[in-house]
Amino acid sequence: MLGRLNHVALAVPDLAAAIRSYEKTLGATVSVPLMLPEHGVTVVFVELPNTKIELLEALGPASPIAAFLAKSPKGGMHHICYEVTDLPAATARLVESGARILGDGTPKIGAHGRPVIFIHPGDMFGTLIELEEVSP
Amino acid sequence: MLGRLNHVALAVPDLAAAIRSYEKTLGATVSVPLMLPEHGVTVVFVELPNTKIELLEALGPASPIAAFLAKSPKGGMHHICYEVTDLPAATARLVESGARILGDGTPKIGAHGRPVIFIHPGDMFGTLIELEEVSP
Repeated sequence: MLGRLNHVALAVPDLAAAIRSYEKTLGATVSVPLMLPEHGVTVVFVELPNTKIELLEALGPASPIAAFLAKSPKGGMHHICYEVTDLPAATARLVESGARILGDGTPKIGAHGRPVIFIHPGDMFGTLIELEEVSP
Repeated sequence: MLGRLNHVALAVPDLAAAIRSYEKTLGATVSVPLMLPEHGVTVVFVELPNTKIELLEALGPASPIAAFLAKSPKGGMHHICYEVTDLPAATARLVESGARILGDGTPKIGAHGRPVIFIHPGDMFGTLIELEEVSP
């Protein structure tokens, strides 16, 4: 069921500083910033040969990462996203096991335009896990 | 400079429960547990098509993840490991930028038998980053 690691998301308080650090100090290739007001984040992708890292900065007062940054002002590891080919089946299996799906429990359209769910971190050993549906 | 994402490490308080959850609920392939007393962890690898996830449980009283689990008893995202082909050059670049290297600042032999360093999370936006040297 579990497919590729789609991305790891790191929340940062200052995206410009994080971009500089990833580009100049770590020598990584970083995309141009993308403002996603409907998701409450500005995001860049650190392109790696086998996956990508998303650096997230809060955008707007209702940003889903504002509370995270209030608790961890320096930033930190926010979530990890795995790909699945059948999100309804994966969701049903999770619910059956007792895991809680965030929101109303149904898939939403994520930042990449594909259906996603988030699993409650309390039911996944403290890690916020996103599942994104991809074509088989 | 920054190569593949080698792994993401998640600390868990109960490795057996985490293995069950990743195998049965998420449908992942998980390796047999490996005790690494010299690193103070028991580890399993969740094999994904493009990278791997390490699930870490504390082993022994001096485990480097014991303090993390004391603060986050449910577990959580512990570190992220990127591959580099020239660790001394990467380390020099980091030090030059003002980033602190954990320990005495020189590479150690990591859990995979290769030279590694850890960058102070305070100098990398709250994320603990491991760099592992791989062949070019």
